[in-house]
This record gives sequence, structure tokens and C-alpha cells, in this order.
Amino acid sequence: MSLISSSRRRFLSSVGAVSAYVWIPRPVHGYGAAEMRAIADGAGQVRPGISKWDLDTPALVVDLDKLEKNVQTMQAALKQYGLPSRPHAKTHKSAAIAKYQLANGSIGVCCAKLTEAEVLSAKGIDRIMMTTANPSVSKIRRAMALKKAHPAFIQAVDTEQNARDVSDAAKAAGVVADVVIDVAVGARSGIPPGDGAVALGQLISKLPHLKLRGMLSYDGAVQHANGFAERKARALKTIQPNVETFEAMKKAGLNMEIFSGGGTGTYNIMHLVPGFSDIQVGSYLFSDMQYLAIGNERGPVFDEFAPSLTVLTTVLNNRFPNRMTTDGGSKALTLNVPHAGVIGEPGMDYAATSDEFGAISFTTPPAKNYKIGDKLEVIVPHCDPVVNEYDQMYGIRGDKVEVIWTIDARGKSQ
Amino acid sequence: MSLISSSRRRFLSSVGAVSAYVWIPRPVHGYGAAEMRAIADGAGQVRPGISKWDLDTPALVVDLDKLEKNVQTMQAALKQYGLPSRPHAKTHKSAAIAKYQLANGSIGVCCAKLTEAEVLSAKGIDRIMMTTANPSVSKIRRAMALKKAHPAFIQAVDTEQNARDVSDAAKAAGVVADVVIDVAVGARSGIPPGDGAVALGQLISKLPHLKLRGMLSYDGAVQHANGFAERKARALKTIQPNVETFEAMKKAGLNMEIFSGGGTGTYNIMHLVPGFSDIQVGSYLFSDMQYLAIGNERGPVFDEFAPSLTVLTTVLNNRFPNRMTTDGGSKALTLNVPHAGVIGEPGMDYAATSDEFGAISFTTPPAKNYKIGDKLEVIVPHCDPVVNEYDQMYGIRGDKVEVIWTIDARGKSQ
Repeated sequence: MSLISSSRRRFLSSVGAVSAYVWIPRPVHGYGAAEMRAIADGAGQVRPGISKWDLDTPALVVDLDKLEKNVQTMQAALKQYGLPSRPHAKTHKSAAIAKYQLANGSIGVCCAKLTEAEVLSAKGIDRIMMTTANPSVSKIRRAMALKKAHPAFIQAVDTEQNARDVSDAAKAAGVVADVVIDVAVGARSGIPPGDGAVALGQLISKLPHLKLRGMLSYDGAVQHANGFAERKARALKTIQPNVETFEAMKKAGLNMEIFSGGGTGTYNIMHLVPGFSDIQVGSYLFSDMQYLAIGNERGPVFDEFAPSLTVLTTVLNNRFPNRMTTDGGSKALTLNVPHAGVIGEPGMDYAATSDEFGAISFTTPPAKNYKIGDKLEVIVPHCDPVVNEYDQMYGIRGDKVEVIWTIDARGKSQ
Repeated sequence: MSLISSSRRRFLSSVGAVSAYVWIPRPVHGYGAAEMRAIADGAGQVRPGISKWDLDTPALVVDLDKLEKNVQTMQAALKQYGLPSRPHAKTHKSAAIAKYQLANGSIGVCCAKLTEAEVLSAKGIDRIMMTTANPSVSKIRRAMALKKAHPAFIQAVDTEQNARDVSDAAKAAGVVADVVIDVAVGARSGIPPGDGAVALGQLISKLPHLKLRGMLSYDGAVQHANGFAERKARALKTIQPNVETFEAMKKAGLNMEIFSGGGTGTYNIMHLVPGFSDIQVGSYLFSDMQYLAIGNERGPVFDEFAPSLTVLTTVLNNRFPNRMTTDGGSKALTLNVPHAGVIGEPGMDYAATSDEFGAISFTTPPAKNYKIGDKLEVIVPHCDPVVNEYDQMYGIRGDKVEVIWTIDARGKSQ
């Protein structure tokens, strides 16, 4: 049984959403996904609304007021920095949310996987940049079909062979492909910065069916670096070789209008990178326990984006000392750490380590006496993979379900 | 970067499937899910078959020869022990596999969640035992609708209130509900063994719309206890209070035809429990890295069930020293440990810690020179939650896709 550490408890107490007491009404119904779909109109709108506490659990819900505020906060900050957003759709995998982002100032969205881009394109999202180079001729061919249908589609490339294959597929599709070079930060994806990357840019500029638009440089690891000063120092250091490559490409006369990367953890850092054109924020919509813990310039909680994404779960068992079992395990919350944060209960540790069940342990008495059937609301450990466990999320306003959003690209990992 | 430990490497080398060299043909197509669906007939059959290496990745595949042999092995062992199987459908969430189990000697299947039971019932699976007590009146009502449509449905109950609620719902539905008492092993679900459980049995036997069938006792933790002797000792010790409760219930004149529990890790232990009626094996179909590592009477590898369930993944990047990036991250393989085992490459460590990408590291040279676009096949870390990430699995025979099985209850965690 994992018990909550004192440092974890201190952290949770400092997260406003976790420490505030919440009154939870007794649920009376328990609307399942099919029932909710039947109530909603074609656009997913639910009128006059049903209490979120009446949803069958585990249920993925997003607080619309918080989500909208998060988008405003991000757009206002980026406006100040002169840096547009090109949010990563891998976070939400939902056409409805992508549309909202595009309607609220984002210049496009990113997709990590081809199937994700295909599904969102089919749902009307046309300004997609695919940030992963496609590793096979068949995938490249499908990407060029997307380009043909959606002229704003941009594709990452990362080797000379890959560039030639994209050019061939573009030719076959009768298009000129807009491409960006994925220049590696760290050792995960992309071509290493330096002469090889510049040579790739020069090749691309000569291939007849490619149009070079610029480069990508995404540092995944630095987004969760702990503490603003540390994060800033690391982000600016790891990007430095890429800045030099960017400059060398410009010097070589290449078209470098795009220099894209960054994320929610570096939203207020990447404008310091010379030439940076746009930032691929994603988690700012939802936040999560991982992001809350990275801290900011003011303290240990990264609190500029409210945790809008939660999972509602139900107490199944309250009979054993200092613990409870819920219906949300790893299939509902994933195994990511830090653990889910139970709203209103900073003294609880919620381990979703079992596939089907959550195990809550506590060393201090809970704020109330929980009965079987009572519900809890938890801030998710890590938003992206939790979203990928659900077919829909419920958009909530004032505790009432306002809309059902389909997670169109759920499971689209190909 | 996580490097493979020497003990891990020794373990992997001792797993036949991981240590054997495999020849992987160069993929030529890359069939996506929609293309494969279009090729298959209404029953999911694919004729004359497409090479598994030609599937778009990440792809979840199951080797049918191994799966069938695993079922035969389990059924033969249980026949010898005189213990029928009632497999847990949470493992595969697929009506096609449940049907195969029922056609091959299983007396029924178990479901962990109501929505799982609803979906599988709708697909024609009628001998379902729901092993989790439903925590709300609405869920109980839905369970009784299942009972009405499928008379063989059995429902777990775990408190007096819960029993009364099930009785009321059964009355309203015009049925007599078959119920089993979930008697706790450990501190997760169910009523603790002892007088309270017996009293619950007595109440159930008096409630007019309930028919007591027996009890459940599932010890999840002991399934993965390391080493056969340790596992056997622990399993027989933790079940002992429940055996006493079972005896007390019988002595009280209660109908105790069912005493169900156990799992793949204790398939060859639970017949030693007096009165035990059937075993809820699940992972025996697929095995996984977690099960392989628990050992058996002969050695450190639990090898009586072949690892039939694998994920095919593609190399995206091979440019950094002693590592490769693949297209299968935590959304394709989950964060469970031990890590996925790369078939043919016991010197590789496959960390699926990033959402979208796998990070393979190695300290000794791989068996071959991997290029971008090459494929790898990996044994999954933990079968249940990996299955829950996919909409379908491909049934493979001799490396050819023979059938597409829908994972009907994927995401049904409610």
C-alpha cells in the first residue's frame, strides 16, 4: 500500500484545486455514454444539461470555463511575446477542440501520427503540420493524399531518402509538398543539427516537388524540467545548436519562415530563441499533475493554467482501514506519475496501479465520510495518454454537462 | 537513457521467443486498419492473407497457433486438476475470443465492468459472471436488464445494502437474480471473510428475488508472486480465511455451488483449495513480459503459455549511438513494467515511456543493422491494458493475417 509522502502532501495542499473542499451531491442516475449520446443533439450539445455527478463513471470531463480561460491566458501571453501557437492535437485528439483553438488565434495544429492527421482532416481541420517524418512509402503516399485535399498541410522530413520519397509521392499526387525539417533536440527524432541538416535543406530546396518551409525542433524532456530557472536555462541551452543550424540554413539562402517547437512547459521561454516562429503548446488546455508539479517563477505550482481535465470515479469499497477502492484504474487514468490528485482531499494518495480499480490510501482522515457509490473527482496524472483511453469527453459548465466532444483520433497511434 | 541490466538481459536470453533470431522481410505496403477492414469479410476473415509485416504500425497481433495451444494447455491442465475455467474477459474484451473460449471448454466468462458485460452480451456472449459489485442503483438496474435478456448472467454482491438493491431491481425487472458474494482477499474489493460474509449469505438466501450461487475470492496480487513455491504458499495462505468462510456458509445451509477465483498465475495451485469450483484465468491466452517473469517449477521463465500477443512497431530513427526510436510509445504499449521484449534482440531495452515513441537502447550490437522503416515485434509488458489501447487485433497464422478481431469492449471501463 503506497502512503502519501509529506512532500507530496505539502505539494497537493498548495494546489488550489486539490486543497479546496468540494460539495458533491448524491448521484441519482448514472448516465452512460449511449444515454448521453441519445440526449445530445447532432453537434453534441446537451440542453438543458445534466449534472456531471450523474454521469456513469469513470467519466472524462473538462471544465469549459477553465479550458476557455487557459486558452485566453496562453493566447494573451503569446501575443505579448509575439509568438503564435500551433497547438499539438495529440493532446486532445478531438476535432471540436482543434476548431476551437483555430478559432481563437492558433495558426494551425500539429499531429504526431499520420492516422491522427487523417482523422482530424476528415473532420474539417485543414491547417495541420505533421511533426513526425513518415517512415514508409505507403505512409508518405497517404500524407500526400492529405496534402492534395488540404493545401495547408505541412509534413516533417528528416533524411535525404525521406525527402526524395516525399518528393516522389508529391509528384505522383500532383502536388508540391510543403515540408519542414525535423532537427533533433536530444536523441529521439529528427536529423542532428549541423551540416547534415543544412545539406538536407539544400537538397529539399532543389527537389522539384518539395517546398521548404523551415524547421522543427522539439525538446520533449525539457517541458517538465523542475523550476522555471532550470527549465529556462536547459531549454535555451538545448536549442542552441538548432539555432545555429537555423542561422546557417538562412545564410544558405533557404526559406526558413517556420522555426517551430516548444510546449506548454516552455511557453514563456521560447520567444527568447532568435527566429522562433511558433510554439506547439498542447497541455495548456487541460494541465495535469505532471505540469502542476513543474513550478513557475512564483513558486512550486505551475498554476497559470487551471487543471480543467478530470476523471469522475466512484467509491466501490470503503471497508478497509485508511483506504478506499474506486472504479478508475490504469485503464481509466494510466500509470503516469505523479498520481492523480483527488480534488478536496490533499491527504489522499490515488494509485491507479491496478488495471480496473483505483486504490486510495490516506494517513489523515478524509474531509468527509465516503460511502460506497459516492463520487470523487481527480485531476489526471498526464493529460495526453488519459484522453487516449476515452471515446468522448464531457464539456462541463457550472457542473452541468454542456457538450459531448468525440475524441476522434483516440487510439490513432499509427 | 535506461540501459538494460545484466539480470534483465539474462532473463530475456532465457525467454525463447525473445532470444530466437527472426528474419523480418522488408515491408512493401503498410495496410491501415480501414484498408484491412475493407479486405476482410463480415466475420473478419482475411483470405488469402496478408503478411503481418505489411501492417501499418503500431499493430496489435496475436499468433493464432500459440493462442490455440495456450487454450489447449490450460484446458488440459485444468482437466487434470478437475477445475473448469471461467476466463476473465477483461483481458481480451473481444466477443470473438470469448466465443472461442466457450467453445473450448470454459463454463462461462467473467467481466470486471458492467459496460464490458453489456457489450459482450450484445455480441452474443450469454454466460457472463460480473465479478464486481455494482455501486449504484442505476448500474444495478442495467445489470438486471442483462439478467433478463441472458438468464445465465451472474452478479457479484458485496454488502447487505447492495444485496437488497439487487433484489429490488430484480423484482422490478421480473427476474430472480443469480448472485455470488465477493469475499475479499486482501483489501481491494468485496466483503471481508468471516461472520459478516456468512450473514450476507443468509440475507441473500432470504431475499425473494435473489438466488445465492456461491462466492468469489480473487487475489490479484498473488498472481505475479515470483517463483512457484512462493506463489503457491502465498495463494494458499491468503485464501485460507475465505475457505473457512466458504465452509461456514455451507454449514449454514447456503447454496455454495460456486467458489470462483484465481488466475493464470495460480492455475496450477487453486485446485488444492477445498471446494474451489472454477478458475478465472485470463492472461494464459496471451502471456506477457510480466507473466514470463514470474517463473515456474522448472525455472525463472513462466513458459507454459507462449507469448502470443505482440505489437509490431517501426524504426523511425537510427541515427543516435546505441539507440533507436520507434513509433510505439505508451499509447501503444502502456507504461507497465517489465518493459516490452524485442523478439530476436535480448540485448535491447524497449522503453515506451514517451507517449508517442518507443526508445530502444542497447549496450551490445543488435542482431542486425536496422534501417528507418524496418519493423520490430515486441512481446507486450502486460496484456490487459495494452489490448485496451486498440480497436482491433490481427489474428496471425504463419505470419499471415487470418482474421481481424474487434476489441468490442475497448475503453469500456464503466
